[in-house]
Amino acid sequence: MPLHDPPRFPIGFRCAATRCGIKAEGEGPDLSLFVSEVPAAAAAVFTRNQVPGAPVQVGREIIGAGRLQAVVVNSRVSNVGRGEEGIARSRRMGEATARALNIDPGLVLMSSTGVIGVPLPIEKIEAALPGLAADLQADPIVGAEGIMTTDTHPKVVSLSVGEATITVVGKGSGMIEPNMATMLVYAFTDADVERRILDRVLRRVVDETFNMLSVDTDTSTSDTCAVLANGLAGLVEEGPFEEGLRAAFTRITEMLARDGEGATTLLRVTVSGAAERAEARRVAKSLVNSPLVKTMVYGGDPNVGRILMAVGKCFDCRVDPGAIRADICGVSVLRAGLRTDFDEVEVRELLKGDPVDLEVDLGVGGEQARAWGCDLTHGYIDENAAYYSS
Amino acid sequence: MPLHDPPRFPIGFRCAATRCGIKAEGEGPDLSLFVSEVPAAAAAVFTRNQVPGAPVQVGREIIGAGRLQAVVVNSRVSNVGRGEEGIARSRRMGEATARALNIDPGLVLMSSTGVIGVPLPIEKIEAALPGLAADLQADPIVGAEGIMTTDTHPKVVSLSVGEATITVVGKGSGMIEPNMATMLVYAFTDADVERRILDRVLRRVVDETFNMLSVDTDTSTSDTCAVLANGLAGLVEEGPFEEGLRAAFTRITEMLARDGEGATTLLRVTVSGAAERAEARRVAKSLVNSPLVKTMVYGGDPNVGRILMAVGKCFDCRVDPGAIRADICGVSVLRAGLRTDFDEVEVRELLKGDPVDLEVDLGVGGEQARAWGCDLTHGYIDENAAYYSS
Repeated sequence: MPLHDPPRFPIGFRCAATRCGIKAEGEGPDLSLFVSEVPAAAAAVFTRNQVPGAPVQVGREIIGAGRLQAVVVNSRVSNVGRGEEGIARSRRMGEATARALNIDPGLVLMSSTGVIGVPLPIEKIEAALPGLAADLQADPIVGAEGIMTTDTHPKVVSLSVGEATITVVGKGSGMIEPNMATMLVYAFTDADVERRILDRVLRRVVDETFNMLSVDTDTSTSDTCAVLANGLAGLVEEGPFEEGLRAAFTRITEMLARDGEGATTLLRVTVSGAAERAEARRVAKSLVNSPLVKTMVYGGDPNVGRILMAVGKCFDCRVDPGAIRADICGVSVLRAGLRTDFDEVEVRELLKGDPVDLEVDLGVGGEQARAWGCDLTHGYIDENAAYYSS
Repeated sequence: MPLHDPPRFPIGFRCAATRCGIKAEGEGPDLSLFVSEVPAAAAAVFTRNQVPGAPVQVGREIIGAGRLQAVVVNSRVSNVGRGEEGIARSRRMGEATARALNIDPGLVLMSSTGVIGVPLPIEKIEAALPGLAADLQADPIVGAEGIMTTDTHPKVVSLSVGEATITVVGKGSGMIEPNMATMLVYAFTDADVERRILDRVLRRVVDETFNMLSVDTDTSTSDTCAVLANGLAGLVEEGPFEEGLRAAFTRITEMLARDGEGATTLLRVTVSGAAERAEARRVAKSLVNSPLVKTMVYGGDPNVGRILMAVGKCFDCRVDPGAIRADICGVSVLRAGLRTDFDEVEVRELLKGDPVDLEVDLGVGGEQARAWGCDLTHGYIDENAAYYSS
């Protein structure tokens, strides 16, 4: 599906960003606002972490009505682990946005990303919102920049589905401050898609994309993915809409994986020949999360024993050890569970490329799944060890 | 339970080690033999990895009879991923040992640890075994040295249970070559413990110790833990024997964790207040395996949000987010789910020590569990990325 380059917003969406003062001067914007001209049908999914941040708790209530008109996001402070005070400040963030835009507070979704356990500087956010609301722009990259934390570049994808446009803005999985990987993704579309369809399409597509993305197995307390459909470009059928959203989310997933902390390459793992799709997913996740597979990719060494190990440690997935096949970037390295006589120099070169594709066939059935991740490098250790939380 | 220092063997056990030529000259011994004067009651547990090495496959057969008199172990080549040829060579290794000792091949357990996918140099092993059998010594450290791979020191623990002695020799979880972490542990005792009791005590104790040890979440294809009880010191009741084995295995577990690849400290996680023991285990493993918790320990920063995150990502474990408590090395850092007003300078100092103790109370029940691991460092990346498998 061809992408718009540069990316653009669907009809009726605009955004703004500013540094309201949570970040220090010179550190870039820390507050973004995304707005639709008219209320939009909306759906959202949130982290499954059992210690979710205040914005996730409030966001779950707000999305219940299935309608949104604005999304407000601050970076640097996550508003997690703050109890009732955190909930109150998150509500104030939504209310201030609603006042600035003269809309219902129930139409505002808020997110916060950054350090855990410190108070959200809500007064700075409140003071900045009227100015933000008066500064709305047509370039989605502006809003994408305001939600960046340790991301090395803003992440935006936009594409057309018939007359409609889908534009997705995301951040992560670079670490936040770097407290933990938080993924925030907002999809905006002028397609007319009813709320019920929006919700089920979102869940299906997230399950195949962001839920198969892992930088380091650590699940953030703030992950949020929302979609707003304002309908201004007219009706789009469920099938084409889903296809468009999947293409956009896949692209953002790959951008997030490639920009994972310290990563030098995108690692794309496809597992086929599984007895059940759930098993294909578990094995793909096992491979993409294995520190030994990830350091193998970083080191550029075709150490195929690690592939066998990461498959075999999925105790509850059916595998035929004598039938396992694996390819690294299209070169066969395992057949019938045995190392092939591959050209090591060639495979080492391929492992230095980007992306690195790892394809594994379990030899027992017809189901498959794909997972996305990155290599594990010195940069990851630097970002997460050489850091003080306060 | 007081340890023997230096460690010594129980009555009737001896060992030998040599470099038979799998490792290059100057790289240390690569073949160890442990022998009991008389056949011993025996039990063993093996890796759950679904792609186990040939020695594990053959070992499962052999342990079925519940008796062993010798254990033979080579390092450098793991004999994994070699199909029928690997099985045949593993059998030959046991048969050569039996010939050299003039015992039944069914009384010999064999292990191999090292590179995956290359042929076991069985001729070199066969040629060395008569010499080894003629060179048996009383010092268990000799045998422990012969099974080392990337371990930085030999690992032996011995202690008394009444009149009997339990001596445990282990290796890992430094990486092998470094293909993958393999844990090999052999317990020798002159206690008279019947096979049925030996088996159930071994399973219980392994479940609380080695099964709660993780250096990097990657499960080896070769893990083996066996116990041989030759009875020469007379009867020992199940209770005291289990207590002794638990003390010895706990000690070895901590030695393995502290010597994990690149580790600078032992990380010991205790989870209490769980609704079920299985949930306490899952949360303890989540904490000890979290790259963000592990790099937090390496960096010496009390980033308590990462503790909340690693608890909360155990989706299927009951947790009261408003009641979570956590201590780092005895200092309270979380109470009622909120960061306490702890002295950061003090906690940073404590995190630089060894071991680092992390205690977390989930606030929902009375069950608890402990897990052992280590920090995640640049040394881990170096050992596993800057390496060629062939």
